[in-house]
Amino acid sequence: MMAFRRLLLGVEVGGTAMRVAVGPSPRRVLARQYLPTPADGPQRLVSVIAEAAVNLLRGPGATLQAVGMGFAGPLDPKTGVVLDSPHLPAFRNVPLRALLEERLGVPVSLDNDVNVAALAEHRFGAGRAAREMVYVAVGTGIGAGIIHKGRLYHGAHGGAGEVGHMTLVSDGPECACGKRGCWETLVSGPAIARDARGRLAKGEASLLSDLAGFDITRVTSELVHRAATRGDGLANDVLAGAARYLGVGLANVVTAFDPEVVVVGGGVAEIGDVLLQPAFATAREHLYPFHAQRVKLIPAALGDNAGVMGGLMLAQARLRQAGTT
Amino acid sequence: MMAFRRLLLGVEVGGTAMRVAVGPSPRRVLARQYLPTPADGPQRLVSVIAEAAVNLLRGPGATLQAVGMGFAGPLDPKTGVVLDSPHLPAFRNVPLRALLEERLGVPVSLDNDVNVAALAEHRFGAGRAAREMVYVAVGTGIGAGIIHKGRLYHGAHGGAGEVGHMTLVSDGPECACGKRGCWETLVSGPAIARDARGRLAKGEASLLSDLAGFDITRVTSELVHRAATRGDGLANDVLAGAARYLGVGLANVVTAFDPEVVVVGGGVAEIGDVLLQPAFATAREHLYPFHAQRVKLIPAALGDNAGVMGGLMLAQARLRQAGTT
Repeated sequence: MMAFRRLLLGVEVGGTAMRVAVGPSPRRVLARQYLPTPADGPQRLVSVIAEAAVNLLRGPGATLQAVGMGFAGPLDPKTGVVLDSPHLPAFRNVPLRALLEERLGVPVSLDNDVNVAALAEHRFGAGRAAREMVYVAVGTGIGAGIIHKGRLYHGAHGGAGEVGHMTLVSDGPECACGKRGCWETLVSGPAIARDARGRLAKGEASLLSDLAGFDITRVTSELVHRAATRGDGLANDVLAGAARYLGVGLANVVTAFDPEVVVVGGGVAEIGDVLLQPAFATAREHLYPFHAQRVKLIPAALGDNAGVMGGLMLAQARLRQAGTT
Repeated sequence: MMAFRRLLLGVEVGGTAMRVAVGPSPRRVLARQYLPTPADGPQRLVSVIAEAAVNLLRGPGATLQAVGMGFAGPLDPKTGVVLDSPHLPAFRNVPLRALLEERLGVPVSLDNDVNVAALAEHRFGAGRAAREMVYVAVGTGIGAGIIHKGRLYHGAHGGAGEVGHMTLVSDGPECACGKRGCWETLVSGPAIARDARGRLAKGEASLLSDLAGFDITRVTSELVHRAATRGDGLANDVLAGAARYLGVGLANVVTAFDPEVVVVGGGVAEIGDVLLQPAFATAREHLYPFHAQRVKLIPAALGDNAGVMGGLMLAQARLRQAGTT
């Protein structure tokens, strides 16, 4: 007979996909589930999380003790209210923590998804032992989680580290936010796909046409990466362009925050050395020498586990807090 | 007969000029002195400060209790060692606090000049009551002092807020730091003068020729400002270009730090509304809506007193610290 188990739930909600994991501690995930993010609203999201919790906790005597969650958008971690969410507009000004606590009957803690992943990379991953760290996530967008004196730096309204919307090219491509030339319009997954499609549309030859079944609209950053590893010129050019802007933006982040280390993760960073090494070299060229001599630029270590591990960390911390108040 | 007076010394050392002030508290400056910064090295600077202290303290029974100083360059406020100084290379890796304490025989506290001015604008100036504030100084360069939870944010190596070296235009004008397109190459006093000179050299008509005695090399940002207030087209164009880049850079700073308020000061900011109002408007256009709705962008309130007031604040704090250890 199994012992009575007290478990935590870690949740990461991105613009299109979400992950849920259970475990007794951040480093011991017992089960996990990947799901599409329900974009239609908070009530549906709360239901999906509740169902996932039931599924994952199934077993003799397992009880849920606390939930920690990362959510894509600026939010107030004190009140647990989501303030904005560019990819999920139905969640603006939603008291998500209160809704989850009401439904699940356990303490819930909430923070921005990139911040939550930053906590995990800081405690268990590439940023261990750094007191001043910036985690930069490059995926469908770019965001940063800033660790200052070992803790998250939120800014005045939970919107610090929205660095994907720093302007790098004043008259650059249009961004989903309505502005032009934001860092993430030059480097993210959609930006890489857009640049490759643009060149294919001009009739340039590339393996990509074949890989995408001769349908340009099916070109993704993953396909660009695959073509690049096979030596495709166009794909390698597109990645080199993205790496260059990734580097310039990383230099700007270092110049602003002066961290010991910048950890670069997220789906696009998983492309690996072919993207990151030239980006790090460009960053050093674009750094003021004082910073170039001191900062470390390194890839993330936890891959796509960072989000749920950070969620479990938040759950653990929330449980301790609940126990003392 | 005057009473025995215990006084503090506030010092601001910039790349070309320095200020020294004495008073019993940050808001009560009794006497001050402006001097050229001795670029030849730390020993000479220490002597100049010691002489200024003797001059300013002259009077019956006045004694120096502590010194607080802002210095142009990244430094370690804990050890009082200047780490770098782009405008004063003789000061790299110099234990300036120890040298001053040895010479003056009183406790000395040291921080970056922009940080020290930020402290004063935060306590007594435009940023009062803000817990999250960024002070941006625009002068011969651009620097930021970041207040987080009411205290200075130094980063890992005392180099946070060197935002003048964030890249805004990859292939832009060359910067004193060796890079291209740094924010300060597009907006600072020397940048404004360079842009005006470049257009005059192409033969464009402007009041500036007259104001500069028909010697292009004598065109300064102050003259550009003067010509602009008299309705000169070229001067107004140059200021409009600087305002635009000032705005884009301010937006990037807000996007990174998410402060309640950005306070803009420094010699170039003294040009006033003709520069700052279009810059603030451009910043709002270049902000992610979440930030645009929340941040306040305002001119500094203390003018060129911020540096010595901040120095006196540091001296006061250092005295309290010395009294308890």
